Amino acid sequence: MTYCLALRLEAGLLFMSDTRTNAGVDNVGTYRKLHVLQPTSDRTFVLQAAGSLATTHEVLDRIQHDLESGSDRPNLANVTRLYEAALYVGELNRQVAAAHAEALKSVGADGTATFILGGQIEGTDPDIMLVYPEGNFIRASETVPFLQIGEHKYGKFLLELAVRFHVDLERASKIAIGSMLSTARANLSVGPPYDIAVYLNDTFDVHQRRIEADHPYLDELRNVWAEQMVEAIYALPAIPDQLRQELV
Amino acid sequence: MTYCLALRLEAGLLFMSDTRTNAGVDNVGTYRKLHVLQPTSDRTFVLQAAGSLATTHEVLDRIQHDLESGSDRPNLANVTRLYEAALYVGELNRQVAAAHAEALKSVGADGTATFILGGQIEGTDPDIMLVYPEGNFIRASETVPFLQIGEHKYGKFLLELAVRFHVDLERASKIAIGSMLSTARANLSVGPPYDIAVYLNDTFDVHQRRIEADHPYLDELRNVWAEQMVEAIYALPAIPDQLRQELV
Repeated sequence: MTYCLALRLEAGLLFMSDTRTNAGVDNVGTYRKLHVLQPTSDRTFVLQAAGSLATTHEVLDRIQHDLESGSDRPNLANVTRLYEAALYVGELNRQVAAAHAEALKSVGADGTATFILGGQIEGTDPDIMLVYPEGNFIRASETVPFLQIGEHKYGKFLLELAVRFHVDLERASKIAIGSMLSTARANLSVGPPYDIAVYLNDTFDVHQRRIEADHPYLDELRNVWAEQMVEAIYALPAIPDQLRQELV
Repeated sequence: MTYCLALRLEAGLLFMSDTRTNAGVDNVGTYRKLHVLQPTSDRTFVLQAAGSLATTHEVLDRIQHDLESGSDRPNLANVTRLYEAALYVGELNRQVAAAHAEALKSVGADGTATFILGGQIEGTDPDIMLVYPEGNFIRASETVPFLQIGEHKYGKFLLELAVRFHVDLERASKIAIGSMLSTARANLSVGPPYDIAVYLNDTFDVHQRRIEADHPYLDELRNVWAEQMVEAIYALPAIPDQLRQELV
């Protein structure tokens, strides 16, 4: 499995992905799932992928091929809106999955992939979008502006907190790392190293960094979080007398 | 969907279940999923169910029928070990699902159910067990003695905290309620009222209580928890300078 998240904040966009891949528990690998694409100086894209690794790789190769072939067909260098980029990625995704569907079905496998596409094209607002295997897409909502793909359930509550309290990019980065660590602890199919990318509005330049499994900050964050959780548990209000008497 | 959890603590057992059922979003109901069974004075069982509501109901009816018919075949009044009770429930579950499998398959439905069976038979230790649709079962592990069925991912981290810090029954009750509230907030298919049951070792008597959606304690707990989460976020350690400079 996989866990990728993206947040749309006031100052910019934040992306984080794990790198664990597995085809059965005895075939575990490490692959980048967060890709930065800057085909021209007036646009920046971050593409995150969950699902079939083979499909993801072929989609990335075809994106690159289209950029290099310089044709007039839609590609990431000539679309003028982010939604067109999402539709373009969705169409490639559909084509690649369809090309392998029959062969994969015969062995009971599924070649579909899901993407988060985020970024900005000059003259338009930065945004994040979720591209479905069927080729269509949704934007992040106005009230809860984050997206997740892959193992999204374990780490969702932390992202909701981040959004609810209008945190800045730095605090959001801590929360994103916390959401990733919670998920990785609960689910073996999600694991380090972690890729994190930050896009500040109107800069057309993405800062990215890989955080290795042994980075001391991960341990520090984990420990502080555990301490805070214990405090939270002890702070919970007493069960009302009547309810307690009925129960114990 | 459903969310049921059970904890095995030093002093006894704790069970909690939601009551929401749905067959599509336009067909939402409220049904008890936590059932206390005390067929004789030397034994107490709590049975929690997830999956097909029809299968659950027929299993419960057949349990009752077997108790009333007074035959020598295994039933909850004559088994001598908890694992035999689990196998008995598992066998009924399999039989009921199999009886309806063909008709359900023809409309694309699935009649399987999963149970948590907990309790104590005199002369043996109290325990909790998860009974699979296939009729086999597992006990809760020694190191992480809780079980969940249904929508288990959202609320898992809270139960892990409870277990990790060896909380008592009262604190465990708060945590169980917290785990339920987290799940219900994240997933519409889980909702109030909530049934909670507590079993103190060697008492052969279960205390149970339904907590309604408008119980003021739920609001209080939710608010304190939200405050604690904000404090936790603010307490997270600063991102190391080097990492921050690379990112923003």
